Amino acid sequence: MEVLEIIIGYLGPKGTFTEQALDVWIKKVRLNPAQYEKVPYFSIADLMNAVGKNIDAAIVPVENSLEGSVNITVDSFIRGVNAMIKGEVILPITQHLLTKKIIPLEEIKEVLSHPQALYQCREFLKEKMPHARLREFSSTAEAAKFVSKSEENIAAIGSKSLSQIYDLKIAAQSIQDSENNMTRFYILSREDETATGRDKTALIFSTENKPGSLYRLLKIFAEKDLNLTKIESRPSRKALGEYVFLVEVEGHRLRDPLKSALEELKLSASMFKVLGSYPVFELSELKS
Amino acid sequence: MEVLEIIIGYLGPKGTFTEQALDVWIKKVRLNPAQYEKVPYFSIADLMNAVGKNIDAAIVPVENSLEGSVNITVDSFIRGVNAMIKGEVILPITQHLLTKKIIPLEEIKEVLSHPQALYQCREFLKEKMPHARLREFSSTAEAAKFVSKSEENIAAIGSKSLSQIYDLKIAAQSIQDSENNMTRFYILSREDETATGRDKTALIFSTENKPGSLYRLLKIFAEKDLNLTKIESRPSRKALGEYVFLVEVEGHRLRDPLKSALEELKLSASMFKVLGSYPVFELSELKS
Repeated sequence: MEVLEIIIGYLGPKGTFTEQALDVWIKKVRLNPAQYEKVPYFSIADLMNAVGKNIDAAIVPVENSLEGSVNITVDSFIRGVNAMIKGEVILPITQHLLTKKIIPLEEIKEVLSHPQALYQCREFLKEKMPHARLREFSSTAEAAKFVSKSEENIAAIGSKSLSQIYDLKIAAQSIQDSENNMTRFYILSREDETATGRDKTALIFSTENKPGSLYRLLKIFAEKDLNLTKIESRPSRKALGEYVFLVEVEGHRLRDPLKSALEELKLSASMFKVLGSYPVFELSELKS
Repeated sequence: MEVLEIIIGYLGPKGTFTEQALDVWIKKVRLNPAQYEKVPYFSIADLMNAVGKNIDAAIVPVENSLEGSVNITVDSFIRGVNAMIKGEVILPITQHLLTKKIIPLEEIKEVLSHPQALYQCREFLKEKMPHARLREFSSTAEAAKFVSKSEENIAAIGSKSLSQIYDLKIAAQSIQDSENNMTRFYILSREDETATGRDKTALIFSTENKPGSLYRLLKIFAEKDLNLTKIESRPSRKALGEYVFLVEVEGHRLRDPLKSALEELKLSASMFKVLGSYPVFELSELKS
């Protein structure tokens, strides 16, 4: 029997929350180690553009419960990434302050992390470390790696697993602004998923800048009792005040009532693209 | 005759785009130098919270045509800032790469700026300076100041006026991703503005997570032919998938048809707050 190996890209390096989310997905779809290879990428845009070319699938963060959408992920779809969404994973996030040696917080001169992680901890940083300079890295793992190699009094923000990979101490535990810190990820591939009966569909569209134009498009969903689970506006980059919307709605794009709603929407929106249909992730899947 | 002096806070230090926008507003409302004092703040949240306490008015960035909303400004309103919006200013943004001495781009090891400025130039940075590390500062001016005092081969991203204030060279000109780069600012005060006939009103509200709940609220505006000029969703911070919306709509909150629409909306939304009514800024005002 021949086994096809799929190559899956993730936002690396090793130990990022994105890699942890990928491991959750691999377990969920029961891929065994001979069936896949994980490849780290260092830019979300490059990763999304590589799907269908250098890699078969990818996982990217899309939104966090404290800080909202990951703009680069949403913008990459708007600017024409052709990959489709075939799944989602939701991961609880616990951030720690990681240092080479245990030192008092007031001696830490700089805090390094991914911008979303810095934002997630902004109340802690403002209250306990107002003197520390914040420094943006491409991932929590890159920041932890930098701290592990530096002789300065600096700290990274990241997961417990990074403290193990880079041999760092936990100088302060669970420092995010709220216990309710979760990140949602998309699994991207050449094709989306077939209907399971518990599906969501993501799409992007733009409207004319006229009274009621967004309302008229949302009406199409409301009249069919279709629940929007997300609506996000992003600048069109053409003019201030012109937006593109990313919407998620319950249902599968090939099944009514969503199928006919999408046909209607396509006729009314100035720009319109379905990003894919995928099974809803249940938090109970984390425990299995 | 007694002259009352008003104290206006802005996102400092001197030379930020926010200070430039404040100067546009001061000219627009014809304040003479004896009537006001400008005070720099170093955090948007602190600045917004100080209105009505240490300062009479403030100016904060709210959205950029390339990168979208300034999350901390929108989130500060959601978390209970009591200041009201009494005006807006729109400023065209041109970003330059600023260095102490002219050196080849490939020798620049780090690029420093405010995160929005780094994002606005991400295509340039990726293409021309893929090797350079990005470092986040609280403002473009702080980054320029740091570069002016450093002996390292580093660069800041910021305005031409910063190159003058901090005696820096322009190593690359107009490096933002699009010519269409504009930032919009809110003027905050204890009270909003009286009706002029060309007004906008900003408000925040949340909806229940049920089919059609956002649609039913937008319907209130659509039925009265009220044009939404902005809709932005932010996480509620309570649970993933729960949002608070910031909406801007044409009209004044004390004049019909908007007045009665807001009364209706108040009854249907789970959370609801009017942030203020203010005159629409015309781009022609920049030339006067």
